Amino acid sequence: MSLKVGVLGYRFMGKAHANAMARLPMFFPEAPEVERHTLVGRDEDALSDAADRLGFAHTATDWEDAIEAVDVFYNLGPNHVHADPSVAALEAGVPVLSEKPLAEDLESAERMAAAADDAGVPTATAFNYRFVPAIRYAKNLIEDGELGEIHHFRGRYLQDWLVDPEAPWSWRNSEEMAGSGALGDLGAHTVDLARFLVGDVERVSGHLRTFVEQRPVEGEGGEAGETRPVTVDDAYSAQAELEDGAMATFEASRFANGHKNDHAIEVHGSEGSLKFSLERLNELEVLRDRNRGYETILVTDEDDPYVDHWWPPGHVLGWEHTFVHENFEFLSAVDSGSEYHPDFEDGLEVQKALAAIQESDERGEWVDVE
Amino acid sequence: MSLKVGVLGYRFMGKAHANAMARLPMFFPEAPEVERHTLVGRDEDALSDAADRLGFAHTATDWEDAIEAVDVFYNLGPNHVHADPSVAALEAGVPVLSEKPLAEDLESAERMAAAADDAGVPTATAFNYRFVPAIRYAKNLIEDGELGEIHHFRGRYLQDWLVDPEAPWSWRNSEEMAGSGALGDLGAHTVDLARFLVGDVERVSGHLRTFVEQRPVEGEGGEAGETRPVTVDDAYSAQAELEDGAMATFEASRFANGHKNDHAIEVHGSEGSLKFSLERLNELEVLRDRNRGYETILVTDEDDPYVDHWWPPGHVLGWEHTFVHENFEFLSAVDSGSEYHPDFEDGLEVQKALAAIQESDERGEWVDVE
Amino acid sequence: MSLKVGVLGYRFMGKAHANAMARLPMFFPEAPEVERHTLVGRDEDALSDAADRLGFAHTATDWEDAIEAVDVFYNLGPNHVHADPSVAALEAGVPVLSEKPLAEDLESAERMAAAADDAGVPTATAFNYRFVPAIRYAKNLIEDGELGEIHHFRGRYLQDWLVDPEAPWSWRNSEEMAGSGALGDLGAHTVDLARFLVGDVERVSGHLRTFVEQRPVEGEGGEAGETRPVTVDDAYSAQAELEDGAMATFEASRFANGHKNDHAIEVHGSEGSLKFSLERLNELEVLRDRNRGYETILVTDEDDPYVDHWWPPGHVLGWEHTFVHENFEFLSAVDSGSEYHPDFEDGLEVQKALAAIQESDERGEWVDVE
Amino acid sequence: MSLKVGVLGYRFMGKAHANAMARLPMFFPEAPEVERHTLVGRDEDALSDAADRLGFAHTATDWEDAIEAVDVFYNLGPNHVHADPSVAALEAGVPVLSEKPLAEDLESAERMAAAADDAGVPTATAFNYRFVPAIRYAKNLIEDGELGEIHHFRGRYLQDWLVDPEAPWSWRNSEEMAGSGALGDLGAHTVDLARFLVGDVERVSGHLRTFVEQRPVEGEGGEAGETRPVTVDDAYSAQAELEDGAMATFEASRFANGHKNDHAIEVHGSEGSLKFSLERLNELEVLRDRNRGYETILVTDEDDPYVDHWWPPGHVLGWEHTFVHENFEFLSAVDSGSEYHPDFEDGLEVQKALAAIQESDERGEWVDVE
Repeated sequence: MSLKVGVLGYRFMGKAHANAMARLPMFFPEAPEVERHTLVGRDEDALSDAADRLGFAHTATDWEDAIEAVDVFYNLGPNHVHADPSVAALEAGVPVLSEKPLAEDLESAERMAAAADDAGVPTATAFNYRFVPAIRYAKNLIEDGELGEIHHFRGRYLQDWLVDPEAPWSWRNSEEMAGSGALGDLGAHTVDLARFLVGDVERVSGHLRTFVEQRPVEGEGGEAGETRPVTVDDAYSAQAELEDGAMATFEASRFANGHKNDHAIEVHGSEGSLKFSLERLNELEVLRDRNRGYETILVTDEDDPYVDHWWPPGHVLGWEHTFVHENFEFLSAVDSGSEYHPDFEDGLEVQKALAAIQESDERGEWVDVE
Repeated sequence: MSLKVGVLGYRFMGKAHANAMARLPMFFPEAPEVERHTLVGRDEDALSDAADRLGFAHTATDWEDAIEAVDVFYNLGPNHVHADPSVAALEAGVPVLSEKPLAEDLESAERMAAAADDAGVPTATAFNYRFVPAIRYAKNLIEDGELGEIHHFRGRYLQDWLVDPEAPWSWRNSEEMAGSGALGDLGAHTVDLARFLVGDVERVSGHLRTFVEQRPVEGEGGEAGETRPVTVDDAYSAQAELEDGAMATFEASRFANGHKNDHAIEVHGSEGSLKFSLERLNELEVLRDRNRGYETILVTDEDDPYVDHWWPPGHVLGWEHTFVHENFEFLSAVDSGSEYHPDFEDGLEVQKALAAIQESDERGEWVDVE
Repeated sequence: MSLKVGVLGYRFMGKAHANAMARLPMFFPEAPEVERHTLVGRDEDALSDAADRLGFAHTATDWEDAIEAVDVFYNLGPNHVHADPSVAALEAGVPVLSEKPLAEDLESAERMAAAADDAGVPTATAFNYRFVPAIRYAKNLIEDGELGEIHHFRGRYLQDWLVDPEAPWSWRNSEEMAGSGALGDLGAHTVDLARFLVGDVERVSGHLRTFVEQRPVEGEGGEAGETRPVTVDDAYSAQAELEDGAMATFEASRFANGHKNDHAIEVHGSEGSLKFSLERLNELEVLRDRNRGYETILVTDEDDPYVDHWWPPGHVLGWEHTFVHENFEFLSAVDSGSEYHPDFEDGLEVQKALAAIQESDERGEWVDVE
Repeated sequence: MSLKVGVLGYRFMGKAHANAMARLPMFFPEAPEVERHTLVGRDEDALSDAADRLGFAHTATDWEDAIEAVDVFYNLGPNHVHADPSVAALEAGVPVLSEKPLAEDLESAERMAAAADDAGVPTATAFNYRFVPAIRYAKNLIEDGELGEIHHFRGRYLQDWLVDPEAPWSWRNSEEMAGSGALGDLGAHTVDLARFLVGDVERVSGHLRTFVEQRPVEGEGGEAGETRPVTVDDAYSAQAELEDGAMATFEASRFANGHKNDHAIEVHGSEGSLKFSLERLNELEVLRDRNRGYETILVTDEDDPYVDHWWPPGHVLGWEHTFVHENFEFLSAVDSGSEYHPDFEDGLEVQKALAAIQESDERGEWVDVE
C-alpha cells in the first residue's frame, strides 16, 4: 500500500517536493512507497499541465476534495492559506506538511499547532535547512560537546531580488498574505536553525525596515503605472538571548546586492566555532580544540549524514537534496507513526519569536518570547 | 515512441545515468521520451536488484542481446570493455554513449572512432564536466573573446583515495583493464576541458609515477595477505602546447591528501582570466577587462546555461546535474539525428594526448600529438 | 625645526606609534621632521629601557613635565587617563593624539572635545583603521556613488583572548579604568568606520554581556587564588539607524573562538556592495554595477591610497602600516596647522554612540544618540 | 663596534634592505649593531638622494671603493653584475649577500660559489621567502614528519606586468643582463622553496615561452617607435623529480592576468598537505592527520616563527618583514661567524636546476641536475 500524497501549490515549492518524492525509490529504497496523488490549485489549465509534469494522477481545485482523497497533505501555498486547509486536514486525521513560516500570524499558527496536538498525527513545518548534511554534522558536533558551551549564534540570510525599486509587487510584499517580509520568509529559517543548533529564543529586540514603499503591479492584474503598497519589511535585524545564555544576532534582507540565497550561520563556543553558508552548502568550517584555525570540511564522506544514499566523496549535492531528506524523514514518520521534527509545535515556537521581533520593533524595547 | 536505452554497468555510473534519465520529464520536458529498457551485467542477482532500483524493465547478461533490443546503448563498464560492445552496437546502427576515457588504449579508441564514423549515428564520450553550467559559461566567455588571446591553461585533478598504501587493489590499478591510472581516469577530463575551452593539444611532455607498487586484494577474489601489482600511474603531470600557442600544464593524483574530487581549471588570456573548481561547481571566478581582481560569479542566474530548467538564483546544483544535461543533449541529438559533442572523435583526440603523455614519459622527451 | 613628540605609554601602542614615526623619513619624505623626544611612564627602569629601544632621547615620570617640553603629545595610556593629560596639553596649546576610545566615559570625552575646541589646535582620536588603504579605497567608492544609496552597514570585531575563564584579569576588565569592554575597545573602531564610510549613528539598541564574572589576578599584584571582578562586557551587539536611513548592526566579542583580530565590515547599497576583513587587510571585495559577484581587489596598486609610498603591486602591507599613514597625516596637519580627522570631535561622536548602546542595554529600549 | 654595510643598488631592493636594517634596533635588539655605510650606484645625483633617504652616510660610484670601506657587502644589482663585485668582496674577506638568482648563468654562479668556499665567510642568496613566518612554520611541520612522506610539491609564481604588449622593455627582458626571464626571476624562488621544504631537484623537464618578441624602449634611451628584442622567457613550466622521490611541478608567468605577486606553494604528503600564497602571506592552510579538511592557520601567534618580535596575535605582517628576518639572520651570522643559509652554495644549487630547465627546453628532453 503506497501513501497517497496531496499537494496544494504547484510552482516553486510544488516542484521541489514533487521532485523529492520522485527520487526516493532510487536513493532511499527504505522509504515508504509514495504516490503523487492529487495536485491542488485554482487555475485548471495550469494545474493540469503541472500535474502532468510533476507526476500527479489527479487534480483538484478544491482542497477539501483533495484532503478526502489522500493519506498525507502538503500545504505549499502562500502563508495566509496555511491555516484553514491544514486544520481541516488534521481534523480529518490526515498528517500535514506546511511550508514555512507556519502561518501569516501568531494566532493562525497557534490554531494550527492546537489542531496538530488534537489530531495526534505527524506534522511538519518545512524548515528544509535542518536537512543539509553539513547542518546535521554541525548539530552532531554541538550535541557531542565539541564546541563546548555556546556563547554566540549569528545568522544572516541575504538576498537581493528587491533592491531594484522597479521589481514588481507580489504577495510576498503584502502583510495580509505573507504576515511579514524578510522576517517571516528568511528569518524563520534562521530562527529555526538557532533553535535546532543551540536552543530556544527567550527574549528579542527587533528592527524592521521597508526601503521601498510602493511597487509596480505586473501582468494581468495591473494597469500601466499601477502600484501597490509594500506593507511588510524589506529587511530586519534582531538581537536575542537564547536558552542557556547564548547571545544571538539575526538579520535578513532582500536588498543585499550581490547575494542570491546566502544563508550564513556562525556559532562560537568555549571549545570551538563553526561557519556555514547555504551558497556553499557542501562545506562546513569547523574550529575544534586541537586546531588553531577553521578547518574546511567537505561534508560528502560516506559516513556523513545522508551522504551514503548519494555519491562517493567529493561529488557534491545541491539545494534540492535537502527536500529529498526532508520528505524521506517525514514520510517515514507518517508511515510508521513515529515522531517527527520540526513539527507544527516547532513552527509555532519560531512564529512566537518572529512575532516578538515584530512587536519589539513596534514598541522600541526588548520583548520576551512566551 | 520512446527511445529504448540499454545500459551496461549498474554501479556508480549506472546510477548516475539512470538518475539523469529519470529526471528528464520533470525538468527537461522538451527531451525525447526515454525508456530505461535493458540493464546489462554479469551477476544476475545483483543485476536484478539494480534494475528494480534504477527503473529498468529488462536485464541481460549478454550485451549482444541488449544491443538488439534497444535504440541507444550506454557503455559504462571498465575501460577495457568499452571497445567491443560499442563497435558491435555501432555496426548495428545503434548510437552509443561510452564512459571516459574512450578506451584502455589508443588502438581500441581508434577502432571505436572508426566504427562511429562508419555508422553515421550520434556517439558520446561521457565528459560530463562540459555540462557544468559554470564551464559552459566559461566557454561562452572565451568564445566571445572576453579573455582575449589565451596564454595559459592549467588543469589539475586531485583525489586522495589511494594515499593509504593499504587501500585495496581494484581494476583501476590494472594497466590491462584500465589502460592507465590517474592519467586516463582523471587526466582525460582535464585534457577534454583544455580542448573544449582552448584548443587541441599539439605536443606534450609527460611524467607518470606509481608510489605504491603492490596493493592488497579484498573480498571474494583475495586470500589473506594476497597482493596484486599496481601497473598504472598513481599520479601524472604534463606540460603541453595547445593549438594557437597557449602553454598548458596538466596534473592529477590519487595521493593528494585532503582532496576528494578537486578538478581545478585556470585560464589566463590577454584580456582576462578564469578559475574553476569542481568542489565548488556553482561558482566561476572571472577576471574581465574593467576589473582588477577575480569576480566570484554564482552561475545560478536564470539565463545561465541550463539553469532555467532548475531553481531560482542562488539555489545551487550538484555534481549529478551534469549528467542530466549530458543525457538531455545526447538523447535529443539521437532523437533528432543531429550532431553531438563530445563524440567518439573527441574521445579519440583525448586518447591521443593521453597516449602521447605516456609515451613521452617512457621516452623522456616531448612527443607530438598526431 | 623638527616636531618634538612626547608619548605617554610605551607598551603595545607606544611601540606602534614609535615605529610609525621612525619610518616616515624613508617612506614619507614629505612628512615634517619628527623627533621622538620624551617618553612618559611610571616605572623608571622599564621606561628607560623602552626609551632606548623606541628611540626617545628623554623620559619623564610626570606627564606635566613632558607636555612642557614637546610640540605634540600622544596619549596612549589606559582609557581613564586619557582626559586629564590631554586637556592639560590642549590648555597649553599642544596638539594631542589620543588612543581610542576617546575616554572611559561620555563626560570625560566631552571635556576633552571641549578643550580641543577651545585650543584650536589639531587633535586626533587614533582610529587607525581609517588609514588602511582598502578602507580608503572603500570610502572613495562610496563617496563617488559607486555603491549607490546605502541600505546596510554590518560590522563585527571578533577576538578570543578571554574565552579561557582562567585568562588573567587586566585593566581592560575594569569599568573604572576602561569604561567598557569589547564595546569600547573594539566597538569604537566599528562605530568609527560606520561614521567614516556611511554616516552618523542616530539611534541604537544595544546588548551587552559578561560571560565570566571573576578572573584570576596574575603577577606582582596578585596572591595565589586571588580574583577580581570583571565589571565590563565580554561581548556586545547593537542595532542602529544611521543618518540617511541605513540599517546597521554592530557586534564584538572577546569570546569568538578562533578569531584573533577579525574586524569585518560589510556594506550593501542600491548599486553595489563591499566586504573587508582586517585579517586580510590588503584585500577588498567589491560588487559594482556591471558585475554579478564580488571582485577580490588586492589594494596594492600604485595609485591606491598610500601605496605609492611603499612597494610594487602585490607586495602586501601589514597592520602596522596603518599607524605610519595615521602619523603622517596627523603630524602633517600639526605642522601645517590644517584640519585633521578623526579628531576629538569624531572621538566624542563615537563615544556618544557607545554610551547610547550601553544605556540602551540597561533600559531595554532604543536610545537616540544626541 | 657596528657592522658597516655597503649596498650596491638603491631602487626596489635597496629600499627593501635599507628598511630592514633600519628596523632591527627596535624589533630585534639582539641583532648586531649595523651602520648603513656606503651606497653604490652610477648616477651621482640619484645616488645622493637615495643615500639621504635610505640613511647611508657615504656613496660610491665604484663598487671596489665600497668593498674596501665596509664589513659586509650587499649586491642588489641586475643579475649580470652579481658575479664580479661579489667575487671581489669575497676575495677581500668581506661577507656578501647577493640578490637572486645568484647570477645570470651557471658559470658565473659557480665562480661565485667557489669564491665563497675559498673565503670561508658567510654568504647569502636573498631568497627572502624562506623567512615568511608561515613558510618557517611549514618547514617545521615537514621536518617534524607531520605531513609524512612527501609525494607532491607544486609551486607557481604568477605576475601580469608584461601581459600588455606595449609594456616597455627593461633589463629583465634581456638574456645578456638577466640570464633568463620568469624562470630566473620567479622560478628561482620556487625552486629554492622546493629545496628548503622538500629536497634537492634531481631531474627536470622544462618548457619556456616568449609571447611577445619585441617591446618598446621607454624614456631616455629610446627613440619614438624604437623597440628591443625580448631574449628571455615570459613564462616557464617544469616537471621535476625531487630527492626521496617526490614529484614536483613548477610554473611562473609574467602574463597571468589578475595576479600581481602570487607565489603559491602546495605540498601533499602521506599524512597531510599544506597550501600557501604570498598574497596572503600571514596564512597557511594545513591538513593534518586528525583533520578532514585544510585548516586556515593565521601564523601570527606569539610562538610562531619571528612573531614575538612584532605584534600580538592577529596583527598581520607584510611582505617587507621577510627582509627584516633575513637581514637579522644574515647579519647575526656575519657578526658571530656562524653558518647561514641560503648561502651561495644554495644559490648555485638553484641555478643548476634553472639551467637544467632551460637546457631541457632546448633539447626537448629530461635533464639531470648534476
